[in-house]
Amino acid sequence: MKKILCSMAFLLTTAAVSSAQQNYSDDHQINPHGERVLSKGMVAMDNSGIFVPYEFTRHAVGDNNILIEIMYSGICHSDIHHVHEDWKTESYPLVPGHEIAGWIVRIGKDVAKFKVGDYAGVGCLVNSCGSCEYCLADQEQYCETARVLTYGSPDVFHGGEMTQGGYSNNIVVSEDFAISIPEGADLTKVAPLLCAGITTYSPLMQIGVNAGDKVAIAGFGGLGHMAVQYAVALGAQVTVFDITEEKRQLALDMGASKYANVNDPQQMEGMKNYFNTIISTIPASYDVKMYVDMLAIDGSLAFVGLSANKDVPSIDIATLIFQGRRNLFCSQIGGIKETQEMLDYSVANGIYPMVEIIEPSRIEQAYKDVIDGKVHFRYVIDMSNLN
Amino acid sequence: MKKILCSMAFLLTTAAVSSAQQNYSDDHQINPHGERVLSKGMVAMDNSGIFVPYEFTRHAVGDNNILIEIMYSGICHSDIHHVHEDWKTESYPLVPGHEIAGWIVRIGKDVAKFKVGDYAGVGCLVNSCGSCEYCLADQEQYCETARVLTYGSPDVFHGGEMTQGGYSNNIVVSEDFAISIPEGADLTKVAPLLCAGITTYSPLMQIGVNAGDKVAIAGFGGLGHMAVQYAVALGAQVTVFDITEEKRQLALDMGASKYANVNDPQQMEGMKNYFNTIISTIPASYDVKMYVDMLAIDGSLAFVGLSANKDVPSIDIATLIFQGRRNLFCSQIGGIKETQEMLDYSVANGIYPMVEIIEPSRIEQAYKDVIDGKVHFRYVIDMSNLN
Repeated sequence: MKKILCSMAFLLTTAAVSSAQQNYSDDHQINPHGERVLSKGMVAMDNSGIFVPYEFTRHAVGDNNILIEIMYSGICHSDIHHVHEDWKTESYPLVPGHEIAGWIVRIGKDVAKFKVGDYAGVGCLVNSCGSCEYCLADQEQYCETARVLTYGSPDVFHGGEMTQGGYSNNIVVSEDFAISIPEGADLTKVAPLLCAGITTYSPLMQIGVNAGDKVAIAGFGGLGHMAVQYAVALGAQVTVFDITEEKRQLALDMGASKYANVNDPQQMEGMKNYFNTIISTIPASYDVKMYVDMLAIDGSLAFVGLSANKDVPSIDIATLIFQGRRNLFCSQIGGIKETQEMLDYSVANGIYPMVEIIEPSRIEQAYKDVIDGKVHFRYVIDMSNLN
Repeated sequence: MKKILCSMAFLLTTAAVSSAQQNYSDDHQINPHGERVLSKGMVAMDNSGIFVPYEFTRHAVGDNNILIEIMYSGICHSDIHHVHEDWKTESYPLVPGHEIAGWIVRIGKDVAKFKVGDYAGVGCLVNSCGSCEYCLADQEQYCETARVLTYGSPDVFHGGEMTQGGYSNNIVVSEDFAISIPEGADLTKVAPLLCAGITTYSPLMQIGVNAGDKVAIAGFGGLGHMAVQYAVALGAQVTVFDITEEKRQLALDMGASKYANVNDPQQMEGMKNYFNTIISTIPASYDVKMYVDMLAIDGSLAFVGLSANKDVPSIDIATLIFQGRRNLFCSQIGGIKETQEMLDYSVANGIYPMVEIIEPSRIEQAYKDVIDGKVHFRYVIDMSNLN
């Protein structure tokens, strides 16, 4: 019954939502407004990569908070880095997930942007100070005063408790950090847009890619296949770089004009000083200089792919100077305002990730597949099947 | 007699120049138009750093060429890297020098931009293809088809012979690659502008520094003290980073609002995410991350300082991504058009290097002083004293 509810979710009427909300409250034993919210999730208890079912509570639904019943939660490569402690010491139990799509089952009394029954998403951020220069510039992702990430992050607005993410059946979030999912969106595919989508959309917008620009996307995976679609939509002439042959046709199907296997020198010919923009989504060590050398004068190379600490690539400054008048650009996700713009743009233009929907029990295998580059291109966990 | 001629050169009238040219032809045994030009210089015969007097010839004064009698030639740190083979295998004999100021003693029949007696300078470039996208965009310094550097560079327009630089008594150059020295310029100080000046002026212009911007100049030497002056002239609030205490007052005298010794942690406090622009002129290995961390959001870090291959600093990509929305920017000197703009701007605004005029016999000691950071801030060789 729940499975049908979720797969049909985008057809829900308000009446159906009310009914569902009633069911939800009964089924999930959500406590009344003002009390902590009970949640179920899939948790990593250590860095072994093993996930087990887990019950926990979240902070109460505050006056400007919304309670989202999570329908879909994407698996991002950075979830894997966090779970495996590739970047830093983590706090366990850890429920990952920052690509969250669901519908609103309760709202606080001051919520103005949403109503019960609306579809809403949550990305990587759930709070920030709201008053620093970053927050005032709609760049909350850089807030250094009180940025709260969606999971594994001390929530200074709630006594410092660690946040838990979207591999769960619900989440409580300030309405200011929830993204409205536009009508007509394909809900099975929306969740990854809130990380993989914004992470690639934002640098393309910041760089100001124009129609006819020569754009390369390095790494054709979860981020890369989104970047290709945005660059194609912007009218760019898109080249894809990856290390395999098997994804060639997929890239061309998405509108890329060329696919080059970087392991084949012949395919790499004729591209010195060629690209106006290169977006590197590669989540591992690689030869950065090779991409710098392919930038045209005044071209920009944006880095958005994060690798494990042990595999971090680097670039020497002499390479940059001798190549000259090239820009290296760095970007993290995007602010809430831009994330909403990205989602509206994506839905309006039919830009979605290719996803494979999996059960919560398959998270461990999915992680292995992501590491091995076997996913095309994003796993999305159907959270309605959480037991 | 010659020494007086040079130090008074900016007072020369056309009549005086004609007379001087006559003297020049007689004294220097310049062959008639169409034959190779005899030159005297100070040469490195190997990578030992030893200089000896040297006689050689340059290509004839072609129809669009000018023959400049060199009055002053600056010593650039990159001369030292070339002579010492810090970057690549060099071709000896090598006469360095790409900061050249003098006056025109002969012109080819098609020369339109200059006349005999004009003051003219030569920077790092003496030719390029003229038709590639870089040349058409006034960025000849990046021409990959036929760029000819002022010394140690095969001159494809003259049978591939190696160019020889400004540590000499004259140079033959296409009028398109000569820079007109504006009236009223301080000729003793103009030469270093043609490398140190344009190298720092260009990135500040490309980045678009505005009045009130927080600008840092890392490394307060030959390049750095020029960058400070340009940034101050643009109305920026300028901070200088260096590793010594002794240059503090000089930086403040040039208009810097702050001077921080990077070896003193206390002086480095309070500058995280602070600067809109940082120009790094450091010619050695250093902690690039420290500067990235001091960039404000959307700030730019420009690298213009070149170190020896063994000391090249690098930056890891994770640092860039986690700092986020920061730009790394690279720049090499500037095109001829921008170099002319720089020189006009510098003279109009009284922006000059601090120089110490030396005899040709002191080049070896000067190199040692530059390496030891003892020069304040540029040695300029008085070429009129070449024996």
